Amino acid sequence: MTDKTRDVRIPLTVLGTGAMGTALVRAWLAAGHPVTVWNRTPARAEALAAQGATVAASAAEAVSASRLVIACLLDDTSVGAALDGADLAGRDLVNLTTGTPAEGRARAAWATARGARFLDGGIMAVPPMIGDADSGGYVFYSGSPELFEEHRDTLAVPAGTRYVGGDAGFAALHDVALLSAMSGMFAGIVHAFALIGPEDIAPKDFAPLLVSWLGAMTGSANKAADQIESGDYGKGVVSNLAMQVAGNATLLRTAEEQGVSPELLTPYTALMERWLAEGHGAEDTTGAVELLNLRRSAADRP
Amino acid sequence: MTDKTRDVRIPLTVLGTGAMGTALVRAWLAAGHPVTVWNRTPARAEALAAQGATVAASAAEAVSASRLVIACLLDDTSVGAALDGADLAGRDLVNLTTGTPAEGRARAAWATARGARFLDGGIMAVPPMIGDADSGGYVFYSGSPELFEEHRDTLAVPAGTRYVGGDAGFAALHDVALLSAMSGMFAGIVHAFALIGPEDIAPKDFAPLLVSWLGAMTGSANKAADQIESGDYGKGVVSNLAMQVAGNATLLRTAEEQGVSPELLTPYTALMERWLAEGHGAEDTTGAVELLNLRRSAADRP
Repeated sequence: MTDKTRDVRIPLTVLGTGAMGTALVRAWLAAGHPVTVWNRTPARAEALAAQGATVAASAAEAVSASRLVIACLLDDTSVGAALDGADLAGRDLVNLTTGTPAEGRARAAWATARGARFLDGGIMAVPPMIGDADSGGYVFYSGSPELFEEHRDTLAVPAGTRYVGGDAGFAALHDVALLSAMSGMFAGIVHAFALIGPEDIAPKDFAPLLVSWLGAMTGSANKAADQIESGDYGKGVVSNLAMQVAGNATLLRTAEEQGVSPELLTPYTALMERWLAEGHGAEDTTGAVELLNLRRSAADRP
Repeated sequence: MTDKTRDVRIPLTVLGTGAMGTALVRAWLAAGHPVTVWNRTPARAEALAAQGATVAASAAEAVSASRLVIACLLDDTSVGAALDGADLAGRDLVNLTTGTPAEGRARAAWATARGARFLDGGIMAVPPMIGDADSGGYVFYSGSPELFEEHRDTLAVPAGTRYVGGDAGFAALHDVALLSAMSGMFAGIVHAFALIGPEDIAPKDFAPLLVSWLGAMTGSANKAADQIESGDYGKGVVSNLAMQVAGNATLLRTAEEQGVSPELLTPYTALMERWLAEGHGAEDTTGAVELLNLRRSAADRP
C-alpha cells in the first residue's frame, strides 16, 4: 500500500519554510513528491528551489498548485493571514502550525466553512529528526478521518503518524500535554543539577543515574491512569500521600542546605499538602489532579 | 567472591522495623544471616521473631549483638535518640535512615567520634522492591570505603549497591537529587492528566504516550551535563531558549483554555524568562541552573 501510494507521489504545497517547514519540504522532495513552497519572506523558500521545490509568489498561488496543502507557520494568526485570500474549496488543509486545542478547533471550523477538509497536527520532533525514520519523532493528527486516511502514507514520509480522533483540538492537546509533562521533568532535572552543582560530583557521572532513574519512574503514569479511570486513588498505593509529604521535607531541607532555590519544587509539594489537608493521606498523590481543575470546586469533590 | 562472603553469613543488627526495615530484615534472614532487631515500639520487631530474627530489648543491646549495625529509622533525630546509650566502639554503622547530606555528614562525625566506622545510605526503592534482584532498586552508599569494601556483599543482599564517595553526605545528596527530579516529572505528569481530564480521552490510552515520550526525553540530562561541564550552554543546541520561551506561551494558553491551574508550570517558565532576560536566548535552557544557586549573585555570572 505504501509503495502504491508513493508511486503516485502526489504533489503538495508547504506554506512556511522556517526550520521545521524546510525539514518537511526536504523529506517530501527526497521521497519524490512535487512540492510547491511559499514563505512570507521569500529568501528561505528560494533556498529550496535548488533542491527541486517550486516557489510560489503568494500563498494563494501556492494553495492553487496542490490539493494537499500543509501549513507550518509561526502561529495560528499567521495561518489566518496567509490563507486570507486563498481559495480553499476542495483543498485538504493540514495544519502543522503550533497552537492550542481551541485554535485547532476554530481553524477546523474556519477551513470547513471555506470548503476544505481539515486536519490539525502536533509535531513531536525537532527539525533534525524529520525524515529520519529511526529518530522516534512523530506527529499527532486529529480532525477529518477521510483526509487522514487518504493522505496517511504521504504524511508518514517526514515522520511517524498518530491519529488521535475526529476532534480537531486533540492533536494540539496531546502535543501540549506531553510537552507540559516534559517541562516538569526538565524543571526537576535542572533542580537536581543545581543540588549537586557546588559539590565534587561530575555532572557526566550523575546524568546517567538521573536518566535511568527517571526512565524507571515514568511507568507511574500508567498507574496514575489506572487510578484516575477507576476513581480509586488508593489502588495499588505503595508510598502513600502522607509518607510522600513527609519525604518532601527532606527534599526542601536539602535544597536549603545546598543553597538552591526551592522555587521549582514548592508548587508540587504545596499541592500535595493541600490534597493531604483534604483527607487523602492514605491514598496515592494522583488525586491531587482534581485540585488543578479550576472549573471544579472543592464542594464537588468526594 | 559473593559465595565466599555469603558462606560466612555474618550476623547483623537492624534498628527500626518499619515497612523498609522489615523488608531489609526479611531479605537478610532469607539469605541466612543471623539478624538481631530492635524497634521503638516492640510489636513490629516481634513479628519478625517468627521468621528467625532475635529481638533485642533495647537499642544498646541490639548494637552489642553484632559488629555490623544497620539503622533504618524515622529520621536522623531518631538515630541519635536510639543510639544515645549504645557503645559504638569498634562497630560498623550503616545508616539507611532518610536524611539530608548535612545530616549524613554530622552523623558520620558523631559515629567516628564514638569509635565506629560509618556509611550513609540512600535507598532508591520502595519496600516491595527489597530482596527482588529484578526490581531495579538500589542503595547509594557514601562514607567509609573500608566499611563498604568489607561488607559490600552483605549490603548487596537486599538491593543493588552504588558507592558514590568518601563524603558521607553524598549518598543522601544523590538520593535527594534523583527524588527531586522525579518530583518535577510527577508534577508534569499530573498537569498533563489535568489537561486531558475534561476531554473524551482515556487516561489509559494517553499514559503510554506519556511514558514513551518522557522516556525518550530523559536523555536530555546527558546533554545538559555536557553543557554544564563544558561551560558552553550553546553546545549542541537544537531548540534554543528563545524558541522554548515562545513555545511556553502555547502551554500556558492551553492550560487556561482547559481550565487547568498553571501553578505547576509557571515556576519553570518564569525561570526560563529570567534567563532569557539575562541574554541567553541563543543558548539551551541548561544555564538557568545558575539562577537556582542562591549563593551566587547575578554579578558573578558570565
